[in-house]
Amino acid sequence: MTTLRDRAAIIGIGQTAFSKQSGITEHRAACEAIRAAIDDAGLAPKDIDGFVRYDIESNTELALIYSLGIPHLRFFAGVTSGGGAVCGTLVLAAMAIATGQARNVVCFRARNRGKRSISTPGKFGGGRPWERQPQQVADFYQYHTPFGLITPAQEMALIYHRHMHEYGTTTEHFGQVAVAQRTHAERNPNAVMRQPITLSDHQSSRWIAEPLRMLDCCLETDGACAVVVTSRERARDAQHTPAYILAGAQAEGPIHIQLSDYFTHRNEETGGRSVAKQIYEMAEVSPRDINAAMFYDHFSPAVLTSLEDYGFCKPGESGPFVAAGNIQWPHGRLPVNTHGGSLSEAFIHGFNHILEGVRQIRGTSTCQVENAELVLVTSSNTDPTGAVLLRR
Amino acid sequence: MTTLRDRAAIIGIGQTAFSKQSGITEHRAACEAIRAAIDDAGLAPKDIDGFVRYDIESNTELALIYSLGIPHLRFFAGVTSGGGAVCGTLVLAAMAIATGQARNVVCFRARNRGKRSISTPGKFGGGRPWERQPQQVADFYQYHTPFGLITPAQEMALIYHRHMHEYGTTTEHFGQVAVAQRTHAERNPNAVMRQPITLSDHQSSRWIAEPLRMLDCCLETDGACAVVVTSRERARDAQHTPAYILAGAQAEGPIHIQLSDYFTHRNEETGGRSVAKQIYEMAEVSPRDINAAMFYDHFSPAVLTSLEDYGFCKPGESGPFVAAGNIQWPHGRLPVNTHGGSLSEAFIHGFNHILEGVRQIRGTSTCQVENAELVLVTSSNTDPTGAVLLRR
Repeated sequence: MTTLRDRAAIIGIGQTAFSKQSGITEHRAACEAIRAAIDDAGLAPKDIDGFVRYDIESNTELALIYSLGIPHLRFFAGVTSGGGAVCGTLVLAAMAIATGQARNVVCFRARNRGKRSISTPGKFGGGRPWERQPQQVADFYQYHTPFGLITPAQEMALIYHRHMHEYGTTTEHFGQVAVAQRTHAERNPNAVMRQPITLSDHQSSRWIAEPLRMLDCCLETDGACAVVVTSRERARDAQHTPAYILAGAQAEGPIHIQLSDYFTHRNEETGGRSVAKQIYEMAEVSPRDINAAMFYDHFSPAVLTSLEDYGFCKPGESGPFVAAGNIQWPHGRLPVNTHGGSLSEAFIHGFNHILEGVRQIRGTSTCQVENAELVLVTSSNTDPTGAVLLRR
Repeated sequence: MTTLRDRAAIIGIGQTAFSKQSGITEHRAACEAIRAAIDDAGLAPKDIDGFVRYDIESNTELALIYSLGIPHLRFFAGVTSGGGAVCGTLVLAAMAIATGQARNVVCFRARNRGKRSISTPGKFGGGRPWERQPQQVADFYQYHTPFGLITPAQEMALIYHRHMHEYGTTTEHFGQVAVAQRTHAERNPNAVMRQPITLSDHQSSRWIAEPLRMLDCCLETDGACAVVVTSRERARDAQHTPAYILAGAQAEGPIHIQLSDYFTHRNEETGGRSVAKQIYEMAEVSPRDINAAMFYDHFSPAVLTSLEDYGFCKPGESGPFVAAGNIQWPHGRLPVNTHGGSLSEAFIHGFNHILEGVRQIRGTSTCQVENAELVLVTSSNTDPTGAVLLRR
């Protein structure tokens, strides 16, 4: 039986500068990041024959390959969602490579909130959230939007409240995630937010949607990130240490409300828990084998639930796990988001986490985990989702 | 080397009624077609673990699997474009199956033009084409939209004019395609347009964008189509004759303007010609082995250029090839669009062509080609594109 295990590797990474207002279009940002990733891979545009993007991406492959001088694609695909798409792009790239449909595949994400607010009004900027709702609310949004659960912060607040209610998790636990990641970001020259914060700063930051405070929320960032994925065989000739995709998986269901899966019990095999089972089976490893994790962190408590979903601690024990310093670099058991994550480096819809995973494998992170052999990278751990295990 | 050759098969097909105004949402249409395909495959919703859609599809996987009672997906992806996506959905499904990322994958397309005109104004309906242009024209549309090349008919008209200029192709040749397909549709109870037409009817139908007349243009149809793809091994237990995906490919470039690739020479290996080369190599067959073809036919001359791209005749000889009756069922060398195609059965963005390909393999078409062993199905033969070879 063919599987994706160890069939593909990331050999190139590239990014733009991250900022609140880049002043460049999403097209240009994507081209800059992709070009940098191709250079980093030691390849030329003519070597690229596949593209995977988030399906919400504004850049089309046609426009990008024309601008980049990529002559011809033999594979192109998209993955549903924003934060749910991240690792799915690598899974699709690995599939194409494993079946010989493509040789060198670019995966990327580019964002410019300013541009988006002109071309697709209502998503970013432009008044209060409820003013930005379209007249006709589509899909399952119709079931919670009328009750004021409009923004991701509002939707996720209920899920995190439930975690607090069931397990005694506190907002201090959330704060310990935010502080740990900011401490990592202080060493990262690419991070947007590098000034130190304390738990007290966190606790005094304003509510966004209780129990989420401002310092629990990810940044909103302009910028782009890209990687080049190739076959295991071709990766041997790469100019940098390849990050092999030891395992990768996607999952969606069985509770099918994006973000707001209020009816899921935390012991059901859904979202991150489903993906975790798939990748551990494929990789034949367990959480204790993993040296670092880049968890999708639109909100700091997403790191808590991810720690549980991926088996680093039992359900309900993530708060104390974090409080004990386990996610801090350099001495924690499992350094998490060593670039600062979406809370402090940049919010590129989680794609920057893949790049940090690769840097850990290469040994080039600004918070380098010694002898990092195995790094977990995840998409948002609600539906849809995905994850990859990168190995040296 | 792993390839997609013969790794997957279509074991279920399903569709809604086709009409000009269905009165049902795209969500319901998709559910009806997918449910029918799952039933036809002899499976239950719980057996489905993958989904592939056109990226312009309004239906999300989340909403569909919830409504259909599909518990959990392990694979989901989208393909760029409308008519360029058709066969790419099968290629991605086959990749997922070949690598073990999914067992049974649904591919589908659902359309309701009325609903779209409410939720995404400007695409269908609502005034003249130039009134429907957004203020800011994105991507490469900015290079031809200001010159009045706004609708697909206007864009493609120039390409077909060039074919007439270079090779002496005539609008009568276009008409012979339209008449042949209508003759096929007369036998198809699912076809929207079944009243006979003559070449004279074609020649007297009004100009849409010279040299394209009304009877050269595809219908605009409400409806949905779906298929279920599974592995070669599981297909052996299917309740209907499986249509094995002997080969499949996608292509994009090197001239990267969707539809309007005015600068491509017809002897360059781009679009359909690139895909043709890939699938013939993978399948180790040549055009003469193929018993029927379902060509994407947004306009009747697309059948002419596809006949050339896929090697059924030399560049420039497609007009005389059609005039000699070669695409007509039952006596033609290569019966084409035996369901009536997008010109006479329905325009479901080409997805109905896949279903007809499967019916030919099963022996259940209303214009059944005797002993059909090998059927070609194609996406739109400009960029992006794709094709599959189905075998019994």
